[in-house]
Amino acid sequence: MHSILLSGGSGKRLWPLSNEVRSKQFLRLLDDGHGGRESMLHRVYRQLITQFPDVHIVIATSETQEEQIRTELGDAVDIVLEPHRRDTFPAIALSCAFLSCEQHVAEDEVIAVLPVDVYASQEYFSTVHRMVKVAEQGTADLVLMGIRPTFPSEKFGYILPESMCEGYEKVASFVEKPQREQASSLIEQGALWNGGVFVFRLGYVLDILRSRLPYASFADVRASYASLEKTSFDYAVVECATHVAMVAYTGPWEDLGTWDALAQEIGTDKLGNAFILEDSSHTVAVNELDIPVVAMGTHDLIVAASPDGVLVCDRQRSASLKQYADTFSQEPRHYQGRWGTRTVVDRRYKEKRIVSETRILCLYEHATLSIEADATHTLLWVVLEGTGRAVINDVVHSLEAASFVRIPPRNRCSLVSQSAMRLTEVMIETN
Amino acid sequence: MHSILLSGGSGKRLWPLSNEVRSKQFLRLLDDGHGGRESMLHRVYRQLITQFPDVHIVIATSETQEEQIRTELGDAVDIVLEPHRRDTFPAIALSCAFLSCEQHVAEDEVIAVLPVDVYASQEYFSTVHRMVKVAEQGTADLVLMGIRPTFPSEKFGYILPESMCEGYEKVASFVEKPQREQASSLIEQGALWNGGVFVFRLGYVLDILRSRLPYASFADVRASYASLEKTSFDYAVVECATHVAMVAYTGPWEDLGTWDALAQEIGTDKLGNAFILEDSSHTVAVNELDIPVVAMGTHDLIVAASPDGVLVCDRQRSASLKQYADTFSQEPRHYQGRWGTRTVVDRRYKEKRIVSETRILCLYEHATLSIEADATHTLLWVVLEGTGRAVINDVVHSLEAASFVRIPPRNRCSLVSQSAMRLTEVMIETN
Repeated sequence: MHSILLSGGSGKRLWPLSNEVRSKQFLRLLDDGHGGRESMLHRVYRQLITQFPDVHIVIATSETQEEQIRTELGDAVDIVLEPHRRDTFPAIALSCAFLSCEQHVAEDEVIAVLPVDVYASQEYFSTVHRMVKVAEQGTADLVLMGIRPTFPSEKFGYILPESMCEGYEKVASFVEKPQREQASSLIEQGALWNGGVFVFRLGYVLDILRSRLPYASFADVRASYASLEKTSFDYAVVECATHVAMVAYTGPWEDLGTWDALAQEIGTDKLGNAFILEDSSHTVAVNELDIPVVAMGTHDLIVAASPDGVLVCDRQRSASLKQYADTFSQEPRHYQGRWGTRTVVDRRYKEKRIVSETRILCLYEHATLSIEADATHTLLWVVLEGTGRAVINDVVHSLEAASFVRIPPRNRCSLVSQSAMRLTEVMIETN
Repeated sequence: MHSILLSGGSGKRLWPLSNEVRSKQFLRLLDDGHGGRESMLHRVYRQLITQFPDVHIVIATSETQEEQIRTELGDAVDIVLEPHRRDTFPAIALSCAFLSCEQHVAEDEVIAVLPVDVYASQEYFSTVHRMVKVAEQGTADLVLMGIRPTFPSEKFGYILPESMCEGYEKVASFVEKPQREQASSLIEQGALWNGGVFVFRLGYVLDILRSRLPYASFADVRASYASLEKTSFDYAVVECATHVAMVAYTGPWEDLGTWDALAQEIGTDKLGNAFILEDSSHTVAVNELDIPVVAMGTHDLIVAASPDGVLVCDRQRSASLKQYADTFSQEPRHYQGRWGTRTVVDRRYKEKRIVSETRILCLYEHATLSIEADATHTLLWVVLEGTGRAVINDVVHSLEAASFVRIPPRNRCSLVSQSAMRLTEVMIETN
């Protein structure tokens, strides 16, 4: 079985932990059941391979997320990079072209598309298994997952079932994001939410792609990607399909898109260096900083601190965060790479341009960080802990605590750790 | 007139802004009436010299506060350093010995002792003026300031007046920190709180000092300071005095010793990079960090952030903060000197010992910072902004943006700014 995971998202709703480069699916906040913390992406990946041990996974994403996905999942998955942001139909079609042209997957093989930012039980994945079986029977072109609605949401697509067949329901019609009144009426008629899981034979989607963009290779699709209409899979495929089946999933299902929803699944009232004192109630503190966060006598509160900022938010209000995010959020200060992390601890602006930054670099052992100093910036590394080497223009410098290296503008440099390393990195504009 | 200001305090009650080295009187949080912010110390100093333009001021304090007092007040005051912490009687007596032995103040001159951490109106200082007049009349050995009690506090001394004289009241008795029941009864009898302002002729207190510690010079008193009993001026002097007068002050009077009390006098709902959104009420955010602090839908809350930590506290609970401070507070990360500020932005421990720190130094223009690297630490400076010079073992290094200097263990170094400078300072244990 082949599976396409869709990894997108802007990261405004879980500020200050999520940001432009760190979407919510990468936050390691969920209880992994073994005393550790895992991200939503890792959780979905783990649940998926538990259900389908031999599954081949393709993740459709943008370049900004590639390194973080590798950090979370290593080389166990293929990553298909969207050359531009084009919504879910182009992203899924591009991944299908990759499976067909590059991986030589037969067009009658079944593909399951899943979102990465869903929080569900293992039963969700056994539902996917049932959906795959329905698709293999061949009576439906497309199999959807139906979710029992809890309120007349305007955010979801609604699936109206027609008649029960063996293990699935035939779909009568599909309505994408109806207004509240229509949503209520659909729920009364027995409609379910579309959970964003799509199962189909590869050729089905490739036919639709071919009708929009004739291609001979994966490279062709990538090259013409910008010309594809920005449209969702729901509009481009689901609404036009004639033979559609649905399998219902009735277990826990959350997108953890607000601090309040996330806080309920964290499973503890504090993560990081945090203290909750004086009969506080329903207060959850998540702290990524190394200075303490203290809550005293607080109720129904989220306190979240990261290198990007500090949020103190009434839990009921957390859904409104997104609309304000642009007013206070700045360029991200924390970056997680496959080699380790970079955290900005001091930043100076001049006319809205960053003119200096002091950062803390943490490298895992035997990791490599390659950088190229641009024409206007000087970089300096001071080793705080660990050993390794810096290679500047083919000259090797051994590094240990208190070593320092200066990288003049326009130079290439690699930092290679032997043991885990911690460094202070200073960047200064020197044009 | 000579005035002794008592500057002490541990700084636990306004964490994370106050700490072991930065007591509350140094926090520049109060509206100075001209669009700027001033500290409690500066406010008391400004109000005092408004009332007494020719006053000579001595500040009794410990060594940890000397630099901060100079930062606030420059060279306009004398500073008497207590060799050890010995409570208020020894501190006042030491300052009196300084005035007598070093400044040759006559023993019949009137001295006014004031706390520095009081928030009052200018009328408070005209009350001090009336107290000085009473002392000059010579009918009382000691003149106290009476404050109208608002509740039967167990924290204050109570002054029971006997009869009204011209401009003052004779004091019948004095009770230091009574229990609640006795306090209520004292208030019913017309007692006032002792406001901690003491006015007397210099010789009166020197006589008491001489009875406890015979001395010939100020150096004698300093040398024997540790042998003086740890006792307050209230116990050692006020309770034993026979001819005591009181002048009442009825204006606003606060010690701003809790976040709630301080927040009421800040005069704005936010200081620093802070956002208060979504119909929050009675929320005050004070942010010393350069990343944003955001409060959404919060009520009756204090949010305070500094390099030492983040506090989120119900306003009614803020008085309890002190009792928990030891559980979460660490070594201070922000230091204000006469030359500028030093802020720790990254700190690493090994077996509770600090093994590395990355700090941001900000020097005012034409300022000098002298340091001596100890035997086990290497120091590195990287210039982010500004120009100046470093002098290491008599060798002068010119500094500008992107310059760096390494100071090996056991070296003396001065950093002298020409324009205002900003540097990254890295300290690494290298024994």
